[in-house]
Amino acid sequence: MLLRVRAAVAQLVAGLGAGAGGQPPAEPRGGERGSPAGAAFCRPAFLQLTPEELRRADDHAGRAVQSPRDGRRRLPWSTGYAEVINAGKSQHNEDQACCEVVFVERRPSPRGRLPSGEGGGELDRGRKGFYFHYWALFDGHAGSGAAVMASKRLHLHICEQLRDLVDILQDPSPPPICLPHDARAGPVELSQVPLAEDDGEVPNDAVPRFHLEKAVSHESLVIGAIENAFKHMDDQIERERVSQRLSGGCCALAAVYLMGKFYVANAGDSRAIIIRNGEIIPMSREFTPETERQRLQFLAFLRPELLGKEFTHLEFPRRIQPKELGKKMLYRDQNMNGWAYKKIEEDDLKFPLIYGEGKKARMMATIGVTRGLGDHDLKVFSSNIHIKPFLSCFPEVRVYDLTQYEHCPDDVLVLGTDGLWDVTNDKEVAGVVMEVLTSYEPNDPCRYTMVAQELVVRSRGVLKERGWRLANDKLGSGDDISVFVIPLGGPGNYT
Amino acid sequence: MLLRVRAAVAQLVAGLGAGAGGQPPAEPRGGERGSPAGAAFCRPAFLQLTPEELRRADDHAGRAVQSPRDGRRRLPWSTGYAEVINAGKSQHNEDQACCEVVFVERRPSPRGRLPSGEGGGELDRGRKGFYFHYWALFDGHAGSGAAVMASKRLHLHICEQLRDLVDILQDPSPPPICLPHDARAGPVELSQVPLAEDDGEVPNDAVPRFHLEKAVSHESLVIGAIENAFKHMDDQIERERVSQRLSGGCCALAAVYLMGKFYVANAGDSRAIIIRNGEIIPMSREFTPETERQRLQFLAFLRPELLGKEFTHLEFPRRIQPKELGKKMLYRDQNMNGWAYKKIEEDDLKFPLIYGEGKKARMMATIGVTRGLGDHDLKVFSSNIHIKPFLSCFPEVRVYDLTQYEHCPDDVLVLGTDGLWDVTNDKEVAGVVMEVLTSYEPNDPCRYTMVAQELVVRSRGVLKERGWRLANDKLGSGDDISVFVIPLGGPGNYT
Repeated sequence: MLLRVRAAVAQLVAGLGAGAGGQPPAEPRGGERGSPAGAAFCRPAFLQLTPEELRRADDHAGRAVQSPRDGRRRLPWSTGYAEVINAGKSQHNEDQACCEVVFVERRPSPRGRLPSGEGGGELDRGRKGFYFHYWALFDGHAGSGAAVMASKRLHLHICEQLRDLVDILQDPSPPPICLPHDARAGPVELSQVPLAEDDGEVPNDAVPRFHLEKAVSHESLVIGAIENAFKHMDDQIERERVSQRLSGGCCALAAVYLMGKFYVANAGDSRAIIIRNGEIIPMSREFTPETERQRLQFLAFLRPELLGKEFTHLEFPRRIQPKELGKKMLYRDQNMNGWAYKKIEEDDLKFPLIYGEGKKARMMATIGVTRGLGDHDLKVFSSNIHIKPFLSCFPEVRVYDLTQYEHCPDDVLVLGTDGLWDVTNDKEVAGVVMEVLTSYEPNDPCRYTMVAQELVVRSRGVLKERGWRLANDKLGSGDDISVFVIPLGGPGNYT
Repeated sequence: MLLRVRAAVAQLVAGLGAGAGGQPPAEPRGGERGSPAGAAFCRPAFLQLTPEELRRADDHAGRAVQSPRDGRRRLPWSTGYAEVINAGKSQHNEDQACCEVVFVERRPSPRGRLPSGEGGGELDRGRKGFYFHYWALFDGHAGSGAAVMASKRLHLHICEQLRDLVDILQDPSPPPICLPHDARAGPVELSQVPLAEDDGEVPNDAVPRFHLEKAVSHESLVIGAIENAFKHMDDQIERERVSQRLSGGCCALAAVYLMGKFYVANAGDSRAIIIRNGEIIPMSREFTPETERQRLQFLAFLRPELLGKEFTHLEFPRRIQPKELGKKMLYRDQNMNGWAYKKIEEDDLKFPLIYGEGKKARMMATIGVTRGLGDHDLKVFSSNIHIKPFLSCFPEVRVYDLTQYEHCPDDVLVLGTDGLWDVTNDKEVAGVVMEVLTSYEPNDPCRYTMVAQELVVRSRGVLKERGWRLANDKLGSGDDISVFVIPLGGPGNYT
């Protein structure tokens, strides 16, 4: 389905205005600083909302569910998407989404470094490279700036990281441990690497073989590329946050489909699951003060100055009162998973670094997620204590090899922000997926959109006198909710 | 089977000479500093080896397998045990083992703190407390001192930690978050805690209830007690290593059976699995430079002074040669699971903190395990760089609730040092277990010893011209091998 891919790429270029199609994203060394970087509030380009529709989507009272307009063939693979705004917790919908097909073009060879000047030019004209498919959700907090920018740029950073790997990933032999000399301080020159099916270039000096040499897989190079792309995205937000008036931070969940494999990268508390033949396969885990307790406590223990004399790295089951000094209280430190009693000392009266349980768990009494992009200016309320040193912008990447299994049209990858998962668990999501898909023909391309809409509607609930309520009369999610439903099987779905 | 338990306790007291039966282990504040702390080389007390047998067990050429002598009812629950010395890698067998039934006696109430002076005395005379069963393996390195001492003391440290919890663990209501005032700087006085079925003591001031209060389970108190017991054991080795001439360090794997649950605590590269109805349930994971890479790199990144200008916290797939400066090489740092290329700089020529793969992976080119006890004086060869700051003495504790499943006499918990697992994988161990058990009557108490012996023999192999060989002619384990086979089911096995 190359035609569809090309169309998608064209749409991508049109939608972004700059930097798409394998060109590097706006970096300080680039010439794009004056271009619109996309920090202004908007909804995903693929929704193609008119101003009137945008106003309706922004209505906290109505909370109308949004999906791509005609529901047909809008997104690659007939991907389903739906979103709804929160019930008033923030002015705008702070979730953002992106779905693209991106061409990764091999970086041109530097002039004058090849035995003959012709080779490089020929390769450039042939646009050597490959495509990857990309879906991502960004759940913003404390403003939408970081989420908006990440939704417009993260895939370009991934593309940029992959450009150095075009030849290596297409060569079945193991990746070279070391690449030959590159006199320029610029990016890696893969055209200098000896490749089995390439243009016969020979490096200046052959890489010797070592007795102890770790084998590194192609897969782990893609994982490394995605990890570093998240880091570059975070760096770009840091650099441009003042000039672009970028506010807040965001969780990021991205799925990259490349050469038969899904790479699901998660930094934050969004979640991805695969539903295959009714079985649930978790494709991510959440990063919160509770799940990352030991990393955070370890950092605070080693760098107590980051706590600003306001916090203790120890965890206690509740606040301690000054009058309890000298009593024994349950605690745990960074080395423990269990609990023990300790005598309360003066230092223990400080606020615990990690405090609260479940959705109410907070780090430094401020933030409930511990990985993501942005938040460079976030401080503890009415203090000068920075939160960012404790946050990680690195995702955990899980890999799913599509070629290892037979997939039917009902097998899907579901990506959702926490607005979905807070009220609907994995099993319930799998139930809705199966229920909705069976009511449509397997070749009906709008069936995945219908699933996404149903997931959003069921998690939002219905507005009653006592607020948004689920079918069981429990409170629905008052948060922004965004969902991708990506089919894994069925004829003609992949390129 | 209280009789057997009492007999075991008597044996324990006789075997140790000091400190057993709920008395605190030798601590600086105790009066036992002059007593034999057990750093001298020996074999496990329960083997009851004569001097002649000890000489035979120490023979690297014969490598005779050792088990408790008559193989009947020697160890609690008819536990099977077998061990064999290494093929010459160290003078002595540096593995150690311990199997005990320990009475945890409630700490006596402090005089003068009760409303009436009588209560405490009565309680003391009643010896209020509970028993726990205990099996542990210690795999020593660079000397046997740490392993020998840990094998004689760790269970007493666990006992000591549990003494404060006697009332709390026996009370079905949730553990109190905070215990009342204890004017003395000594241990927690649980007799001051209000207990449903206790002697009606009332604390001086009631603990208020807080809106945000984390529930802590009894189970997590036991986990915390075991974790802190490992820490106290390590501290004791540190304090007494000079006076007792304690050398080296050791991995520690301990199984504690308490109130229906197994707590399996592991610090190092020993391993525990449960085999239940043919299914394999891992009860531990290994802690090595590879599995703990990110923790170690993170510490080195935050505290580069610990690397002594000799090491880099980055990982490379092989050593870099000075002539490769300026080339691009695969690397990963503490945030990454994947690999990427970086330009080689001067600093990258230092030796990588983590280097090598599998059994050859080393931290600081020195040690292949990253958790355990001892090693306080370990340094990088011919340098002043200490290894200990990177090692953790804290175990990971996994819990298995025996009451949640029906167990048959063929269900077992297997503990083994790496000498076993290096050549025999989980599945092969499960195969041997099933094969041997079926050839004995279910009520034959020596069947678990037969399993342990067979596991050791198969991993050691048979001495041929080209060394110790397995049945498939591959090299057998040249390491010390120690195995416990603990039955989980069968009539009359538990007390």
